Amino acid sequence: MNKDMALKELSERFGDRLSVKAADRDAHGRDEGGHDGPSPDAVFRPENTREVADAVKICARYRLPVIPFGAGTSLEGHITAPYGGLSIDMSGMNRILAVHSEDLDVRVEAGVTRKQLNAFLHDKGLFFPVDPGADATLGGMVSTRASGTNAVRYGTMREQVLSLEVVTPMGEIIETGTRARKSAAGYDLNHLFVGAEGTLGIVTEMTVKVYGIPEKLAAGICRFPSLSAAIETVIDTIQIGLPVARIELLDELSIRAVNKHSSMDNPEQPTLFVEFHGSPGAVEEQIELFRELADDRGGSAIDFAHKQEDINRLWHARHQLYYATRALAAGKNTITTDVCVPISRLGDCMLATRADFTASGLFATMLGHVGDGNFHTIIAADPDNPEEMALADQMNENIVRRAIEMGGTCTGEHGIGTGKRTFLEWERGHALMPMRQIKAAFDPFGIMNPGKVFALTDADDALCSGKH
Amino acid sequence: MNKDMALKELSERFGDRLSVKAADRDAHGRDEGGHDGPSPDAVFRPENTREVADAVKICARYRLPVIPFGAGTSLEGHITAPYGGLSIDMSGMNRILAVHSEDLDVRVEAGVTRKQLNAFLHDKGLFFPVDPGADATLGGMVSTRASGTNAVRYGTMREQVLSLEVVTPMGEIIETGTRARKSAAGYDLNHLFVGAEGTLGIVTEMTVKVYGIPEKLAAGICRFPSLSAAIETVIDTIQIGLPVARIELLDELSIRAVNKHSSMDNPEQPTLFVEFHGSPGAVEEQIELFRELADDRGGSAIDFAHKQEDINRLWHARHQLYYATRALAAGKNTITTDVCVPISRLGDCMLATRADFTASGLFATMLGHVGDGNFHTIIAADPDNPEEMALADQMNENIVRRAIEMGGTCTGEHGIGTGKRTFLEWERGHALMPMRQIKAAFDPFGIMNPGKVFALTDADDALCSGKH
Repeated sequence: MNKDMALKELSERFGDRLSVKAADRDAHGRDEGGHDGPSPDAVFRPENTREVADAVKICARYRLPVIPFGAGTSLEGHITAPYGGLSIDMSGMNRILAVHSEDLDVRVEAGVTRKQLNAFLHDKGLFFPVDPGADATLGGMVSTRASGTNAVRYGTMREQVLSLEVVTPMGEIIETGTRARKSAAGYDLNHLFVGAEGTLGIVTEMTVKVYGIPEKLAAGICRFPSLSAAIETVIDTIQIGLPVARIELLDELSIRAVNKHSSMDNPEQPTLFVEFHGSPGAVEEQIELFRELADDRGGSAIDFAHKQEDINRLWHARHQLYYATRALAAGKNTITTDVCVPISRLGDCMLATRADFTASGLFATMLGHVGDGNFHTIIAADPDNPEEMALADQMNENIVRRAIEMGGTCTGEHGIGTGKRTFLEWERGHALMPMRQIKAAFDPFGIMNPGKVFALTDADDALCSGKH
Repeated sequence: MNKDMALKELSERFGDRLSVKAADRDAHGRDEGGHDGPSPDAVFRPENTREVADAVKICARYRLPVIPFGAGTSLEGHITAPYGGLSIDMSGMNRILAVHSEDLDVRVEAGVTRKQLNAFLHDKGLFFPVDPGADATLGGMVSTRASGTNAVRYGTMREQVLSLEVVTPMGEIIETGTRARKSAAGYDLNHLFVGAEGTLGIVTEMTVKVYGIPEKLAAGICRFPSLSAAIETVIDTIQIGLPVARIELLDELSIRAVNKHSSMDNPEQPTLFVEFHGSPGAVEEQIELFRELADDRGGSAIDFAHKQEDINRLWHARHQLYYATRALAAGKNTITTDVCVPISRLGDCMLATRADFTASGLFATMLGHVGDGNFHTIIAADPDNPEEMALADQMNENIVRRAIEMGGTCTGEHGIGTGKRTFLEWERGHALMPMRQIKAAFDPFGIMNPGKVFALTDADDALCSGKH
């Protein structure tokens, strides 16, 4: 009944920008990781921050859950609605509000996507480096602490945020930082909201860093006789401090998927995609050093693309990899996981994982932002075969447990959502208590994206189990 | 009476490592910024984390305030004891626990100082970049979100912390992160404790990043005909993305202070101290680019030091500047302030500040980590002349207000302590509420470094006003 009263009031306030259509609701309850959670009760498309605040205030009054929604491209059930509630779809708030070229920062609304921002910045000689596979919104990327192929050089979303405008769970509007590059003024609220997955408030605007497009870019592909040879080359590269802009590993199955999906004919071998940024002299130096390292491990001659369109084609193929693997595993569900370990343990972790896959008989690809010690696996399993699905889940658990034992983390960039809550407990133990204290302090009614990051109650586990 | 019972129990538990001697207490109630707050009731020197936790539990039971103490080199009254209480002196917990060269991280106790760490790392070809003027402890540097001359290239303490061991205000021991370079696992507790000034817990151990000593270092001095010419050169340098490792501005009065203190004879002109890191080729390229920029603004020929001992001598003089200025202003108090603005506003902010000083007739130097938009002023005033002291305080207020109006922050690196609580309110407004919510959630008894960052009550303002 409370819910009906809330929806009535929201509808009166916002008219047809509040939708209760089944198609709309279902489209907002499903993410790209295959987590089909319950759908929200309604979808609201705000036009400005004031409207977001007003909607949250109405929801707070009636204790109706609020689920922030960007592009719907998250992977761990972040946008499902286990308790029902209002999905606030931020994609319409996509204005680029200010570009400060001289300070290398921009102010944008949370619904701006990474591709939209980069298209806008290109003529100004600037770019925004964080590039998850999907064309996510920046608000979503803030909320999952997203990263991507450039993180080894430019950092993740964590390193890009100078300030956020946030609507709190009580409907207050706050600004978490300034445009200064550094500050020692009070608690670091920027970083508290980065990665909070919408459980502490809704990000409505942000000031983020941008970068000058480097004078020279060179991207290349280098193939290796074995997965371990490729990984060792990555470890060498990072350990000597070579300032590589991107260094991505695709195993042979990933290459097969890329070839099929993008009509390419790369040899099916473990492959590093690398990119170097800098002055022409610096890039030449970096290429030369990398060649030596790769050569020591039996790497192939490197095909370098120097023209922007060739570089774009290369990275487009890489970014399509998740979709490519899903296409290759047609008829199966795909379970994607994501861990990050200290670079010295990357080889151990990936090779043990590969051995585990081989023993299981499942089709699974491995790939990753290996320069950060971060890798993903995409495991295919038949949804109609419970044993296969259970085996896939077991593989996922093994990978996470292995990463944690090696001093790593259960997720490098995808986040917790509903999918990794148990893994977060494995990893953080006692440190979950302060997280819960913050949650309770900010959101005493528990309305902001409930059930994500951690379970609200024991009963919650059943509600949030989701489906792959 | 509660206090007496707490001290009795602490004394029984820790013997003579609990000191109530007046000299000890006074030495722990005074910082380098000249904030002479009330001294703590006792000083405790723990040997391990377990002891810190036990002491905090006893204090929590009796509601006795706890004030974490590192090297006592903070500048805004962070270590004073307006409510009395127990100063926990971490300087004895100074073991270097592990060096992971292959992952470029180290594990240390919080009492390790930056110079101690670098002396230890040097033979391993590694260094830790964050270098506030003082030889602070890493625990203190975490707690004030310290930075220094290398921040423009390597970041501040904010960017170095991979994980912290923290004793919470209830005496629990938590670990805030892992050794993975990035993680999307739950709320970012690392960054919550970095800069919390000991108000949310005591940092006892940490894992921080270290860096390979660059193949080539070159440091140089470039003099300019005017302050604005020097500042414009900095802005040009940052805006073209030149990856300078250090770029420090000293005004002519700062140079005079350095000359006197270090027996040098640098011409008394606005001067940039710069340093470049990288491969020999990259450093040459960077020097050439910088020469062109400096030349365009009338900069002098650059004296470059390439030998490590010459470089060290140069930076030693720079790091002594705070002490040098105090020596030059003998018999006066010095009020140091620290703001940070977007780089495009740095010239406006510094020149308006200089004009303000000139009009005031006070002796004041300007210097700073200008590549970050961060600068300090050190204002001398006669403590026996109330008008002069008031004028100095007014200058400080003007600088902070100007920085905030320009999109900047009231402190780039020194922190809030008791000295800048009002300025924090000016800067953050509504965003103080979530900070207070976190404080109340973590520290329901209000025992952790009370009165720092924000006032506990209105009455607190009188208690914490301190003296310069």
